[in-house]
Amino acid sequence: MSKIVQVDEVEYEEVEWGLTKELIAPQTVGSKKIKVKITEYLPGHTHKLHMHPNQEEVIFVLSGKGIAEIQGERGEIGPGSVVFISAGEPHITSNLSQSESLKAVIIKAPPNDEEVQT
Amino acid sequence: MSKIVQVDEVEYEEVEWGLTKELIAPQTVGSKKIKVKITEYLPGHTHKLHMHPNQEEVIFVLSGKGIAEIQGERGEIGPGSVVFISAGEPHITSNLSQSESLKAVIIKAPPNDEEVQT
Repeated sequence: MSKIVQVDEVEYEEVEWGLTKELIAPQTVGSKKIKVKITEYLPGHTHKLHMHPNQEEVIFVLSGKGIAEIQGERGEIGPGSVVFISAGEPHITSNLSQSESLKAVIIKAPPNDEEVQT
Repeated sequence: MSKIVQVDEVEYEEVEWGLTKELIAPQTVGSKKIKVKITEYLPGHTHKLHMHPNQEEVIFVLSGKGIAEIQGERGEIGPGSVVFISAGEPHITSNLSQSESLKAVIIKAPPNDEEVQT
């Protein structure tokens, strides 16, 4: 499998809160410990409260502005914000802009886990 | 510990091939499965051939241009290139520019491992 992926050559898939593309995953490059995606939270959209019981997550914001809420604590996020979510922590990511996407690199370890609505 | 880190608020440390800053790590946010850094490979510098026996690595290029070599296969990298290195694979990252840094998000799982010169 290819070991160098070009972001622009991978197509987005639609999800409830926007668009996402898997760059590094078991099915793209054979990773076992890590997954890397690009996600765009579309204007006005929210990835509602949920948690992953066994998976750590990092949201590295590339562009746009929004709110991250982890365990009930809220913080503004924008370019250069890096959010860490421990396994089992309920969290929400919201794009409060009505015009611009909130674009971020999403990193998960291990690559796959349940998403539990809380 | 803080769960939202701002890239610009973390200072760089000097390493042999450039500058690096740890954003997400056991000692910064208490992560157990993942480490996220920003690294700048300075103009003309190379992180020479090495491998991590048990750790997967992803290099997500933000700016600049260089060469990634994994298991002897070479590829050009620039903004939007995402390199995946399996555990145990010998690899080299070089900045061939004489004027511009090669800046990348470095992701590792698990967070810590040996660096073995090969």
